[in-house]
Amino acid sequence: MTEQQNTGGDLPDVSGLSIGILGGTGDQGKGLARRFALAGHRVTLGSRKAERAQAAADDLTAGADAGLTITGADNADAAGRSDVVVVAVPWDGHRALLESLRDELTGKIVVDCVNPLGFEKGKGAFALPVEEGSAAQQAAAVLTGSRVVAAFHHVSAKLLLDPEVEGMELDVLVLGDDREATDLVQALAGRIPGMRGVYGGRLHNAHQVEALTANLISINRRYKAHAGLRVTDV
Amino acid sequence: MTEQQNTGGDLPDVSGLSIGILGGTGDQGKGLARRFALAGHRVTLGSRKAERAQAAADDLTAGADAGLTITGADNADAAGRSDVVVVAVPWDGHRALLESLRDELTGKIVVDCVNPLGFEKGKGAFALPVEEGSAAQQAAAVLTGSRVVAAFHHVSAKLLLDPEVEGMELDVLVLGDDREATDLVQALAGRIPGMRGVYGGRLHNAHQVEALTANLISINRRYKAHAGLRVTDV
Repeated sequence: MTEQQNTGGDLPDVSGLSIGILGGTGDQGKGLARRFALAGHRVTLGSRKAERAQAAADDLTAGADAGLTITGADNADAAGRSDVVVVAVPWDGHRALLESLRDELTGKIVVDCVNPLGFEKGKGAFALPVEEGSAAQQAAAVLTGSRVVAAFHHVSAKLLLDPEVEGMELDVLVLGDDREATDLVQALAGRIPGMRGVYGGRLHNAHQVEALTANLISINRRYKAHAGLRVTDV
Repeated sequence: MTEQQNTGGDLPDVSGLSIGILGGTGDQGKGLARRFALAGHRVTLGSRKAERAQAAADDLTAGADAGLTITGADNADAAGRSDVVVVAVPWDGHRALLESLRDELTGKIVVDCVNPLGFEKGKGAFALPVEEGSAAQQAAAVLTGSRVVAAFHHVSAKLLLDPEVEGMELDVLVLGDDREATDLVQALAGRIPGMRGVYGGRLHNAHQVEALTANLISINRRYKAHAGLRVTDV
C-alpha cells in the first residue's frame, strides 16, 4: 500500500457523520474541527459556555472558510447532537467533564485525543501517571456505555489550523477494543488530506501513544519541526 | 531533509568504531551485529558463554557473509574490547547483567535497546512496569560511570537478519541526556542502509518508546507487516 491510502481493509463510509468536539475552543479542538469541516462534515464545537464555543466557531468560519459548517454549543449539547464525539479537553478537567456527560455520550463513539503531560523547566515535557493507565482508559472507565477510541494524539494543532498547509503528512494511530469503532475512526482520519488512520492496538496500550507526544515535543524543539509519525510497511 | 539523510546537524564519523553486543545470540543482537558488520564495523557478540557467542558469530559469517568481522566472546570480554556496547539481552536478566559489567562498561557509550514487555493470551503484548521508569533509566541507574543511550527499540530482528532485505525503511529514535553520545548513536544508526537516527528526547521519556513496541506488535499482527516508524518533517 502507498502511504496515502487508508488501511484496514474495507473501512466504512463516514462522509455523512456529524462530529462534536469537546474542548472545542482549544487549538487542538479548533484545528480538528476545521479539517473535518473542510472534509465536508457538520461540526459542533463544545465548550463550557455556548457563547465561547460560538465565538470560536465564528472565528473558524471567517474569511476564506466561510462555507464551513461549524457551530458552537455547550459541551452537553455538542455531545448530544453529534454522531461521533472527540474529546480534546485539557487533561486537568478530563475525568470531571466525562462524568458530567455520561448520558449524552451513551451509545456513541467517543474519540479521546488527550495527552496527560506535565512540563518542567529544564526537563521539558513528560508523561503524567494516570490511575487507569491512560486518558483513553480513564474515558472507557467513566463512559461504560460508550465506545471509546484513542486517536489524533500526535497531530500538530498549528498545522491543523494553518491555511497554508493543505495536507498533514502523518499517520494517526487509532486504538480501541471495538473493531467497528476503530475502523470508523480510521476512516475519519483518512478524511483529512495526507492523513491515514492506522490501527495501533488495544486501549491497554494507549498510554505510550499518549506519552510519546512528549518525545515529539523534544523532536520539534531539536529540529525546529512539526514532527509526526508514519508507520512503514503498512 | 529527505528521509534517507541523517539528522542532527554534524554527526560524528563513527566508521572506525568497534561494537560489542551483549545478548548477542538473540535475534535482535544477531541482526544488529550483522548490519553493523555489513557497514564495515568490527563486531563482538557477547553471551554468557563464549562458545555460544562464537557459534552465533560463525553462523552469521557463513556463506555470502564470510567477509564480515564478527567474533564471539563472553559478555565481559565483548564489553571490554568494544568502543560502543549495545545491550540486547532479555528484560529478565537486564539489571543483573549490567550490575556484573559495571567496570567493563565504565567510560563507554552503552546503547540500551531492551523493551520490557509482557505477553498474555487474548491481550497480546503490553508494557511491564519498571521501577526506574524504563530499561534505559535502569541501565543509567546501574551504570553510573557509563553514557547510556536508548535506541533501536523498533527494529525488526527478522528484517535485520533477512538477506533479501537491503535497506531498513525506518527511523531509529535515539534518546539520552548526553548530546555527544546521542549524536554518535544517531550516526551509528545511519550506517545501516535506509535507517536514520533521529533524536527522540531525554532518558526520562524512554519508557513510552520502549512500550510502543507493544503497539508495533499489534500493528504487525493486524496488517501482517514488519512495521517501523518514520518521523515526518524532520
